Amino acid sequence: MQTITSYQQQIEDALKNKKYGSDPKELYDPISYIMSLGGKRLRPLLVFMACDFFDGNTSKAIHPALAIELFHNFTLLHDDLMDKAPLRRNQSTVHEKWNNNIAILSGDAMMVRAYQELCMSKSNSLPQLLDIFSDTAIKVCEGQQYDMNYETISKVSIPQYIKMIELKTAVLLGGALKIGALLGDASEENAQRLYDFGKNIGLAFQLQDDILDVYADASKFGKQKGGDIIANKKTYLLLKALEMVEGNRFMKEELHQWINAPHFDAEEKVIAVTNIYNFLNVKELAQNEMQKYFELSLTYLKDIPVTASKKEALIAFAESLMVREV
Amino acid sequence: MQTITSYQQQIEDALKNKKYGSDPKELYDPISYIMSLGGKRLRPLLVFMACDFFDGNTSKAIHPALAIELFHNFTLLHDDLMDKAPLRRNQSTVHEKWNNNIAILSGDAMMVRAYQELCMSKSNSLPQLLDIFSDTAIKVCEGQQYDMNYETISKVSIPQYIKMIELKTAVLLGGALKIGALLGDASEENAQRLYDFGKNIGLAFQLQDDILDVYADASKFGKQKGGDIIANKKTYLLLKALEMVEGNRFMKEELHQWINAPHFDAEEKVIAVTNIYNFLNVKELAQNEMQKYFELSLTYLKDIPVTASKKEALIAFAESLMVREV
Repeated sequence: MQTITSYQQQIEDALKNKKYGSDPKELYDPISYIMSLGGKRLRPLLVFMACDFFDGNTSKAIHPALAIELFHNFTLLHDDLMDKAPLRRNQSTVHEKWNNNIAILSGDAMMVRAYQELCMSKSNSLPQLLDIFSDTAIKVCEGQQYDMNYETISKVSIPQYIKMIELKTAVLLGGALKIGALLGDASEENAQRLYDFGKNIGLAFQLQDDILDVYADASKFGKQKGGDIIANKKTYLLLKALEMVEGNRFMKEELHQWINAPHFDAEEKVIAVTNIYNFLNVKELAQNEMQKYFELSLTYLKDIPVTASKKEALIAFAESLMVREV
Repeated sequence: MQTITSYQQQIEDALKNKKYGSDPKELYDPISYIMSLGGKRLRPLLVFMACDFFDGNTSKAIHPALAIELFHNFTLLHDDLMDKAPLRRNQSTVHEKWNNNIAILSGDAMMVRAYQELCMSKSNSLPQLLDIFSDTAIKVCEGQQYDMNYETISKVSIPQYIKMIELKTAVLLGGALKIGALLGDASEENAQRLYDFGKNIGLAFQLQDDILDVYADASKFGKQKGGDIIANKKTYLLLKALEMVEGNRFMKEELHQWINAPHFDAEEKVIAVTNIYNFLNVKELAQNEMQKYFELSLTYLKDIPVTASKKEALIAFAESLMVREV
């Protein structure tokens, strides 16, 4: 297998040379802008890795890899608009830099560009790749809708939350791996195993995100730290805390006071809620849950008939995702 | 060739039986809602007609036809949101009935459903169908962006306007016909001729729309009559009038006063601007332009090697579009 750096280089080179269109510039500039903001390029990397996992010829992975990255950034663009988020990777979001209508429409064009990119793959499996791509895409939309629904309902269970992050975040990692596997001529069964591996890594990854929002090193964190607490975002941490304070009247009142406060000092709220989390050991519970999905993911690799060294490379990469700080 | 009624029946039956998804209902209900509002189903009809134009077996047309109709309704959903339109076919628009975020996200899901529907076609030409579909889709986005841009720039030329409506409206009729033609195993050359036929019919169709907004029988018109005048929408009629009043200081002042008035009585404005249009004969000029594109469209049919009776059926249908009242 090639190195992560080599895949990353191929992805960055392809992205650098990519033109999304020129006129009207209000339609295409936002696409170039959001695609240039960087990021881990995790999803296209997974396409490359999965292809290489089965077949060393990764040249056929580039278009599907870019298609997945385009689709992912499209979802960020529209999600930021729906969430009224001012910043993405420490830069203005598209609706802030331009306006809401441009964010809607350039996002739409981006989704079309993602499909076009995928169709540039001359793979015989194109119909299957399209099926996985669309199936994943629709699930991501479902996940975002559940996420928005959960903002306004008072009781969200942890299983509901896990289902939501599975749809919104985890299936796209699974989809990227499955598409890569099929490009590498994997059987449907083995491609599905990589999908399930990726989906569980994705769940672990999102739980890590929830943890980092509260506990990351602020200097390395690309978003507003404690943003989830300020916004009462129903993360694993908050839902677990809400579940645990049920038996403790004093703590329940305090947590609900912070959640329901119409006016508050943001820093003060972050500190107070973090203290509750610390008292309840919510961070450790989230880490345990994360570990559970991580270990579950590994079980799907076991029966795939590839060399141990290939599996080790994939596992090492997955482990590196779990110790990130940003 | 089958009758229009027979195609329409097949389309309505397919739409009636179509399920777009169930959970979360906030994502899927708006899709069912907008698809149930009716409309002429013109674009899927064109897919059927074009397929039948070359090959009587139209069973393969149904999925691509629905894909085009889904895509078209997706653009209506997002355009209505961007235009803040309260009504669509005399019913509440999706962002009014639900909210802006639901309109964004259910539109996104609808586009994915459109691609999924297209991919249900087991045609060997699927890669070409996808290319035409995406190429058309991106042009529709470009057209909508130009349309929004033209709202805020003071001088828009008639060629700029024609280019905009070509992208926003006309290419989708062309794309529907080209997809239908390829499903009917037409050659690329003949499929392109039907595309050009459809594109010019589309231009004529949009000019007709501009005329109807001012001159339609209000009782049969599904939108707010004179809505374009109230909103200063730069239609062919307004652009032509602005061009013509350049030499007439009094009339120029009057027209610009209405355009620039921050407050006005809507009915009074519609009557006054219509009077200017009437004085300038703008309706007839628009009709001439419409006729020009209609006649141009017919030239593309000439060299297609199908029977005269098939061409007559297609022309008769195109003519029926030009005398519509709604």
